[in-house]
Amino acid sequence: MHESDDGNLSRRDFLGAGVTAAAAVNLLPGTALAGDGSKADRMIGVPFASRDVVRIGLIGVGGRGRSLLRDLLAIDGVRVTALCDLVPAHAARGAEMVKEAGQPTAPAVFDGSDRVWERLVARDDLDIVYIATPWNWHVPMAVGAMRQGKHAAVEVPAATTLDDCWTLVNVSEKTRRHCIMLENCCYGYNELLVLNLVKAGKLGRLTHGECAYIHDLRELLLSDEGEGLWRRYPHLQLDGNLYPTHGLGPVANYMAINRGDRFDYLVSMSSLEAGLTEYRDEHLALSDPKRQERYRTGDMNTSLIKTALGRTVMLQHDVVSPRPYSRINMISGTRGTFADYPARIMIEGQPEGDAWAGLDNYQAAFESPLWKRMGEIARKLGGHGGMDFIMNYRLVQCLREGLVPDMDVYDAAAWSAPGPLSVLSVRQGSKPVDVPDFTRGAWRTARPVMG
Amino acid sequence: MHESDDGNLSRRDFLGAGVTAAAAVNLLPGTALAGDGSKADRMIGVPFASRDVVRIGLIGVGGRGRSLLRDLLAIDGVRVTALCDLVPAHAARGAEMVKEAGQPTAPAVFDGSDRVWERLVARDDLDIVYIATPWNWHVPMAVGAMRQGKHAAVEVPAATTLDDCWTLVNVSEKTRRHCIMLENCCYGYNELLVLNLVKAGKLGRLTHGECAYIHDLRELLLSDEGEGLWRRYPHLQLDGNLYPTHGLGPVANYMAINRGDRFDYLVSMSSLEAGLTEYRDEHLALSDPKRQERYRTGDMNTSLIKTALGRTVMLQHDVVSPRPYSRINMISGTRGTFADYPARIMIEGQPEGDAWAGLDNYQAAFESPLWKRMGEIARKLGGHGGMDFIMNYRLVQCLREGLVPDMDVYDAAAWSAPGPLSVLSVRQGSKPVDVPDFTRGAWRTARPVMG
Repeated sequence: MHESDDGNLSRRDFLGAGVTAAAAVNLLPGTALAGDGSKADRMIGVPFASRDVVRIGLIGVGGRGRSLLRDLLAIDGVRVTALCDLVPAHAARGAEMVKEAGQPTAPAVFDGSDRVWERLVARDDLDIVYIATPWNWHVPMAVGAMRQGKHAAVEVPAATTLDDCWTLVNVSEKTRRHCIMLENCCYGYNELLVLNLVKAGKLGRLTHGECAYIHDLRELLLSDEGEGLWRRYPHLQLDGNLYPTHGLGPVANYMAINRGDRFDYLVSMSSLEAGLTEYRDEHLALSDPKRQERYRTGDMNTSLIKTALGRTVMLQHDVVSPRPYSRINMISGTRGTFADYPARIMIEGQPEGDAWAGLDNYQAAFESPLWKRMGEIARKLGGHGGMDFIMNYRLVQCLREGLVPDMDVYDAAAWSAPGPLSVLSVRQGSKPVDVPDFTRGAWRTARPVMG
Repeated sequence: MHESDDGNLSRRDFLGAGVTAAAAVNLLPGTALAGDGSKADRMIGVPFASRDVVRIGLIGVGGRGRSLLRDLLAIDGVRVTALCDLVPAHAARGAEMVKEAGQPTAPAVFDGSDRVWERLVARDDLDIVYIATPWNWHVPMAVGAMRQGKHAAVEVPAATTLDDCWTLVNVSEKTRRHCIMLENCCYGYNELLVLNLVKAGKLGRLTHGECAYIHDLRELLLSDEGEGLWRRYPHLQLDGNLYPTHGLGPVANYMAINRGDRFDYLVSMSSLEAGLTEYRDEHLALSDPKRQERYRTGDMNTSLIKTALGRTVMLQHDVVSPRPYSRINMISGTRGTFADYPARIMIEGQPEGDAWAGLDNYQAAFESPLWKRMGEIARKLGGHGGMDFIMNYRLVQCLREGLVPDMDVYDAAAWSAPGPLSVLSVRQGSKPVDVPDFTRGAWRTARPVMG
């Protein structure tokens, strides 16, 4: 790491600033730079330094990590130089994939202990650290990477507490390193097409959006392997929306959140818990220790978010009901409405009249150039229908060409915060709670959405 | 009116109780009978007196009134004995319809003034008064009818303030006359079929429902005739859900609200107002006085209701966005989920796997007997796809056979109250507001839903 990644801070400068960076992490939420107000401190609109080759380290080589790795290895200009996983077999499998992809050198491999990732982020041959680990590791690892001068690309949700949201913002600003949440759904085919329709004003003035993570995970949550090893635990502790970003990211983009609007306040309501307990009692033996667990997360959590411009967002979370998958992905304005699952659109004056029509009519004119160019390989690799590849391709493109990343630490914080905020509101009988302004006022400035 | 309609109160008794009934109307909400607690005071489970012929008076012979009238005239045992409308031409048209239907005697006709309906409800040849007038007339007319010893069948919403909800409850209890809200959507083909699925436990333990009134009414609201003459005015005054019952009634039935569960509290959030103003400015001349109006109702209002048993209901209202019509009509439990627009269902273990399937599989076993028997004529008459006829047929059936009506005054109040409650919550920045228990504790007793 010998370059000055954003032109302001050399590695030497960064190391010198290490104490300050560390201190910032421990400052009270919102107070760190609140009085400062200078735009220079924000990580808004800060381009990457351009480079031919992007050197990537990956922490977490489980199912999700390997899927990301497969994408990255298919992208020109990527060198995967280091891998880390608690489980040696996972790390070894990743190293094999790197070798099979014909990368010029074998990656450094770190495994076997909880803190071994610290050796990965400390290496000199990395530009960005991908983090695909259990939720509770996202913030320490992203912070660790940034404090070691690397950009962080972290799986969703980036953070699960408000303090941690602020920590990511403060560390990103102090270290001048980007913290990008890998919100793949922002790169879905429909999501990018609809974003273009919104930008072109086809839906008129936006008023309302809806989004969700509705995904029957009962079998996974109660499994004794993979994500079952950790993903059930929040259900024992928290009642609220445990996983807000897949739905919220795309709707936030339609509404240009942090780019002219912002989430202002939120109310949240959870239904009773029934689904996971019922499924557990039906499928697990009486002797299974999980039969002693008490789940607190209500089956359906619905949150309402009001934005500064007066728009509303309806955000849901249900991972324990027998329902087909949906992120809803709906956006409505004075001229039209789009909703997904299945994709359907109505724009005033359309030939189909006042009825839903397909997106096909708008494909030619509004399809994302990313999908036009890379759609074939994306669909072939197939991670979540190709959106994963488009996301990874685009992030590598931004790093190589020295562009401003599509999503920054303020997005990571604003899209993750409704998780803990929903818990807070539910605990208080659905009282409204304020969404912090992680941009400290900079949201007022309009700027491009997704490049 | 010489019969004792519920076996407890003759007309003489009722007239004697007139002063008490009038006083009850003016008591503070919730205090009238709160200390009483005796079940006899409730109008829960109170059957009609049986009769061969049902004598009906109709107040409001506009578009909606004539549609109801056409249905009623097609039902055996109905005599329409009186009609009333402010507009003489409307009343005359109704009288013509009665004549054309071959009814034995011409109806008494009242028209031309605001209070002429009081002469209709005072007549002796009526069992029930249908009320299809602008919203602000529903409560005075229903109260007037009940105080004159008639049952009231009132269009939706039954009431638009909490005080008026309580007034309907208090007057119904004191007069021993039913106040039935004509919530036709409860009788929709899908609604009744899904209710049977729910009753049979096919969706498991219920957790969450969703409903709405999403109907692009911009042209109607800005029209200079019909409902345009009055239905726009609440948009000048209130920000909230102006029309909650079409969506909420069926979901309340799925959840057996007032029959083992009840609405406990509510939060509500409105988007900015944009749609009606934009449409108005585009379609009306600068000289039109409506160009001076300022609309306060946010384009999309979303409310969340928590029930005593911990279920949640998401309730929406949007009448000014270019969107296809929807009441959502969704209900979810631990074994399955149904959603409408279009109708789709997933029940765990179904042959189609974890995907939406059609309702067809369940038609034979779960179709409502009402639709089986009367579906053909209902569809031919066609009011809202036939649901209107089924509702009217069923109400007449209950009156003729001396049954307990499907919907009582507590339903009218509980389904209407989220209107004013949403306004209250929105005004307070989405704070939670309690839903009154109009049953004064009697909701705890399970009893049949819709007969």
